[in-house]
Amino acid sequence: MAEHMMNRRRAIGVAAGMLGGAVLNGQETPAPPAAPADPSSTPGLPSGALGVRSPFEAPALTPVGVTSGASLSPLQSLAGTITPSDLHFQRHHNGIAVIDPQRYALTIHGMVERPRVFSLEDLKRFPSVTRTCFIECSGNGRSAYRTPKATMTPQDVDGLTSNSEWTGVPVSTLLREVGVKPGVAWMLAEGGDAARLSRSIPMHKMLDDALIAYAQNGEAVRMPNGYPARLLLPGYEGNANIKWIRRLKAIDQPNMSRDETSKYTDPLPDGTARQFSFVMDAKSIITSPTYPMQLSSHGWWPVTGIAWTGRGRITRVDVSTNGGQTWTEAELVGSVLPMAHTRFRLMWRWDGGSARLMSRAVDETGYVQPTLETFRRVRGAGTDYHFNAIRTWRVEPDGHVLFEG
Amino acid sequence: MAEHMMNRRRAIGVAAGMLGGAVLNGQETPAPPAAPADPSSTPGLPSGALGVRSPFEAPALTPVGVTSGASLSPLQSLAGTITPSDLHFQRHHNGIAVIDPQRYALTIHGMVERPRVFSLEDLKRFPSVTRTCFIECSGNGRSAYRTPKATMTPQDVDGLTSNSEWTGVPVSTLLREVGVKPGVAWMLAEGGDAARLSRSIPMHKMLDDALIAYAQNGEAVRMPNGYPARLLLPGYEGNANIKWIRRLKAIDQPNMSRDETSKYTDPLPDGTARQFSFVMDAKSIITSPTYPMQLSSHGWWPVTGIAWTGRGRITRVDVSTNGGQTWTEAELVGSVLPMAHTRFRLMWRWDGGSARLMSRAVDETGYVQPTLETFRRVRGAGTDYHFNAIRTWRVEPDGHVLFEG
Repeated sequence: MAEHMMNRRRAIGVAAGMLGGAVLNGQETPAPPAAPADPSSTPGLPSGALGVRSPFEAPALTPVGVTSGASLSPLQSLAGTITPSDLHFQRHHNGIAVIDPQRYALTIHGMVERPRVFSLEDLKRFPSVTRTCFIECSGNGRSAYRTPKATMTPQDVDGLTSNSEWTGVPVSTLLREVGVKPGVAWMLAEGGDAARLSRSIPMHKMLDDALIAYAQNGEAVRMPNGYPARLLLPGYEGNANIKWIRRLKAIDQPNMSRDETSKYTDPLPDGTARQFSFVMDAKSIITSPTYPMQLSSHGWWPVTGIAWTGRGRITRVDVSTNGGQTWTEAELVGSVLPMAHTRFRLMWRWDGGSARLMSRAVDETGYVQPTLETFRRVRGAGTDYHFNAIRTWRVEPDGHVLFEG
Repeated sequence: MAEHMMNRRRAIGVAAGMLGGAVLNGQETPAPPAAPADPSSTPGLPSGALGVRSPFEAPALTPVGVTSGASLSPLQSLAGTITPSDLHFQRHHNGIAVIDPQRYALTIHGMVERPRVFSLEDLKRFPSVTRTCFIECSGNGRSAYRTPKATMTPQDVDGLTSNSEWTGVPVSTLLREVGVKPGVAWMLAEGGDAARLSRSIPMHKMLDDALIAYAQNGEAVRMPNGYPARLLLPGYEGNANIKWIRRLKAIDQPNMSRDETSKYTDPLPDGTARQFSFVMDAKSIITSPTYPMQLSSHGWWPVTGIAWTGRGRITRVDVSTNGGQTWTEAELVGSVLPMAHTRFRLMWRWDGGSARLMSRAVDETGYVQPTLETFRRVRGAGTDYHFNAIRTWRVEPDGHVLFEG
């Protein structure tokens, strides 16, 4: 798959006139992008309705065409902390729902005093909250764990995490409107897509920081990310952040829906399984230098990547350049927000030898990202979710970088 | 123009299959967007290479086709604080430069010890800084000041401001590499576009927080915003944030370039003019409710908008619903960052009468956004830049909202 993706990326990378629409229409023209020999002597292009990417830049989700599976975000193409909305990872259970905002409705019922149906306008009339946080698919990193390949990019390895500024109405506000009855301990959240994905969410989370989010990075939530509204549960595994949210039902015990019994439980080596393991553990991944990059010369290079945790703030990221023998604390760059991607960087002087680059995140609870060996021992070979072991990238003497596991 | 825009917006708003590319290609299909009657019973769409907007959402810059003028950002369509990169306002002096990143070069010369040419890879190998800040065109608000119309939207009034997470290398880092000679007080910054836009920037700003920015909201800077690299001067007027930056020259006095003599000076009523008035003053604008919105029913509505200042943080925004007779402190929503758009909101109970909505920003220096009357008196009718007077929106008894000035 990685090789297929590389070919595809190369094809896109050289596509001319790739101004936003071409890839969407499945057109990949073979001519290389062209720039005037001296752009300062050639009048430039007029403005369009949207500010386009340079034809020399073509980040893309992979694979495409997915209706029941995942499309990964190109982490190696990103800087800073925000994931551009069109590059937010996608994980669908029965395709992308197309919902008319005029007909959208969110029903809150079950053990409540005053069941109610909210229109999108209703939701937008309540006081909103804006916060930046990550959403990570609980299966992120599965193929890197089970079938690592040297030619995996950060996108291939861990591309099912993204970070956005979300705006929406607190679920707690809506619950005050409907009046929660005594004995309610969970809420069933159901999507309006054709999978009708549903999960039981603990009431304490719903009252704490859950949002019905209708905006993402300043604009309406993108269609594949749950337009016109999704559940946002900061720090919780992605699938619980129900997209196209249409129903919340107050209940006294978990619903044991298909999506929390047949899926999204974590098998353990002793034959038991963890269930309702919502919180994403502290994790980090180096995004540069990584495959397919080749270091062009000896000297100083930034070793940079992202770290995140569902338990609050990242407090520290250590980087090793010798396969974990010694570690150096990296710098945290820009904002360090709770439940949000945090950019880290360590300046590293490459002397031309081989090196093994690793990053290790620590969060405010003191949790330390585990080594691959520890992770394997505790969770076993067959575990299915919550892959947060330390990753290793090998730098070859010729400057090529490969994924090691 | 506003009516033209409304027609255009309506045309776009009802465009079917408007999945990112249609508007770029100038195609505006007339059929309304369609959604399945029950999206939960109809398998959804497959993922694409990019996460598209819903066909029911079509925010757009206006006007289009601009090569020497401004395209405004649809502030009334935005939530939170981030401006999506493709909706960042544009102001070009000779079109959008198309630059090959492999051939990009930044020259630093003049009164320096070691003149040097940096490639894009060179710039990316230095330690980067990531920060969120606004860029506002110094002419933002001109037509609302000179020729206000009731049918102006926030986009028409003040759409030449946008807010992004920028990543780049500090200019101070590059200046350490080249070694600044004694006596340097300014730096001439020149763009690589066909306008070769150039401005003289005070050295203290260059050493303080100036960046050569190569990433915007997590990805490469969009082509109209200066790809592959631009100067970023947090809090300074937009034109000084030279796009497509190709040259920095250390000098002992301002260059008096065309762009700082024939333009970008502020005529005053006494016949003199302010020059090098870089810092954008505190300002705010209500983005909802505004024209063309109609309040659908009596009751509670959020009065929300954005505030910003080039002098640090916004500390307070007051809202009046009676044309400035009384003011109530609004809530600041989400992050309050220096030199960044800050979202404010006041919940307002509309009783069905007429109302006049205003917002007034205060920054950490104590500067208070002036009334229109004060602004007119101090700056005169012919002033050309830095329009930051308080705006007024009139709510009619039928719920329609109009721009008043």
